[in-house]
Amino acid sequence: MPRYKLIVEYDGAGLAGWQRQNDVPSVQQHLEEAIEKFAQERVTVFGAGRTDAGVHALGQVCHFDLSKEADSDTMREAVNFHLKPAAITVIEAAVAAPDFHARFSAKQRSYIYRILNRRARPALAAGRVWHVMEVLDITRMREGAKHLLGQHDFTSFRDAQCQAKSPIRSINHIQIEQEGEEIHVVVVAPSFLHHMVRTIVGTLRLVGNGKIAPEDVKRMLEAKDRTQAGPNAPAEGLYFLNVLY
Amino acid sequence: MPRYKLIVEYDGAGLAGWQRQNDVPSVQQHLEEAIEKFAQERVTVFGAGRTDAGVHALGQVCHFDLSKEADSDTMREAVNFHLKPAAITVIEAAVAAPDFHARFSAKQRSYIYRILNRRARPALAAGRVWHVMEVLDITRMREGAKHLLGQHDFTSFRDAQCQAKSPIRSINHIQIEQEGEEIHVVVVAPSFLHHMVRTIVGTLRLVGNGKIAPEDVKRMLEAKDRTQAGPNAPAEGLYFLNVLY
Repeated sequence: MPRYKLIVEYDGAGLAGWQRQNDVPSVQQHLEEAIEKFAQERVTVFGAGRTDAGVHALGQVCHFDLSKEADSDTMREAVNFHLKPAAITVIEAAVAAPDFHARFSAKQRSYIYRILNRRARPALAAGRVWHVMEVLDITRMREGAKHLLGQHDFTSFRDAQCQAKSPIRSINHIQIEQEGEEIHVVVVAPSFLHHMVRTIVGTLRLVGNGKIAPEDVKRMLEAKDRTQAGPNAPAEGLYFLNVLY
Repeated sequence: MPRYKLIVEYDGAGLAGWQRQNDVPSVQQHLEEAIEKFAQERVTVFGAGRTDAGVHALGQVCHFDLSKEADSDTMREAVNFHLKPAAITVIEAAVAAPDFHARFSAKQRSYIYRILNRRARPALAAGRVWHVMEVLDITRMREGAKHLLGQHDFTSFRDAQCQAKSPIRSINHIQIEQEGEEIHVVVVAPSFLHHMVRTIVGTLRLVGNGKIAPEDVKRMLEAKDRTQAGPNAPAEGLYFLNVLY
C-alpha cells in the first residue's frame, strides 16, 4: 500500500482543531473526507501536531495509505477541490517511504506566535494575531526565554489536562523578533506539551510588559506548578510552522 | 477649528470602497459616523486615496475638522470603539496644520499588491492576495515594469470610466520582490488613475508567465488604448500602503 505525505495550511478559526471529533468540524475529518472523495476509499490521516481549536497551520504534515498508486500533483489538486469551502489547503503532496510516520518520525517541530503590539485593534490581521496594547520590550522577553532553553520539567507550562506521560521536554530554540508592529515568537522543540507554546508566550508577555522579571521565568519553571506561570496566550495568534524529519 | 489627521487600516472585503455612497457601507461613512458619535458633531472626512470596493489599506490618511479641541489619543481610542465591528481601525490620530489636506497636500502615494504564486489555493491569505497558479518570472516582470517608470500618458492603464482630466501620470518606483510564496509589487507615484495599479499588475502577470514580452509593455503604453493592456488584477490583492506629505 503506497503511503502519501501532505503539507497542509489552514485557518484555525471555525475549526475544532486537528483531531477528529464527533460533533464539530476538524482538520482531520475534512482531509479524510476530501481524500475519500478523490480516492474512493476510506483513509485515516495521521498528523504531526494535534493543534487545538483556533490554532492555524502554515506547514502541518500528515500521512495516509491508499490501496493504489496516485499521481501526487493530481492528488493535491483533487483534494484541494474537495476541501472547498473549508479554509484548508494542501500545499504539497508526495509519495512517502512505507515506514514514514508524520507524528512518530518527526525530529523537530516549530511554532510561530504572532503578537500585534500597538494600541489600535487589528483590522487586516483580525483573527490572525494576539492584540497586546501595552509596549513589550523584546530584549526582556529574550532574557526571560533563555531560561526555557534546553531540557526541563515543563509542568508549569502545560495544561492541567495534558495527557503526555512525561512533563520533560527540550526546547532547541526560541527566537523573538520585531517585525514592524508585530512581535514574532518562534519556538522549536522535538515535541511539545498541551498548551506549552501558548503558556510560554503568555508568560513572556508578562516579562515584556514589566509585570515580572526575566529571572521569574526560571522560578516558575522550577516550581513545577501550572498556577505559577502566566495565563495562556489565545489560540488565534498561534501557527504550526513546520516539521523536520 | 482644529484639524485632525488619521492614519487608517481597513480590510476592503465587504466595504464599497473609500467613498461615501447611498446604499452600501463605505470607509468614509463608517469613519464619519464613528467620529460623530465621539465628538457629537457631524464631520466630513477627506481621504488621500479613494480606494475601490474590496481594496485594503494599511496606511490610508484622512483629515477632518472639529469645532473644539480633542485629545488625539482619546480620539483614536474612542473612534476605534465606535467603529466596531467594522474591519476599520485608526492606527494614529494627530492634530494637523490648518492648511493640511489629506488629498491635495499629498506628494506621493504608495500601493502594494500581493500575488500568491503557487499551485494550492490560499487558506490563511484568502481574500488578501491574488492567487496566480502559473510560475511567474519576476526578472521578466521587472524588465516589463521599467517601461512604465517616469512620466507617460497612461490611457492604456486606466479604467474607461476614469474621471481624471489628464491621463498623464509619473511613476517614481516599481519594486517587485519575491517574499516566500508571494510576489509583492510596490508602485509609488504622486497620484494614480482609476484602476491604474490593478491594470499594471494584471499586465505584469502576462509578462511574468511569458504570454507577452517585457517590451510589449512599452507598446501597450504607446498605444494609448485601454484594450491593449492586460486585464485588471482583482481588488483583493491591493493595499493602499502610505502617503508622503
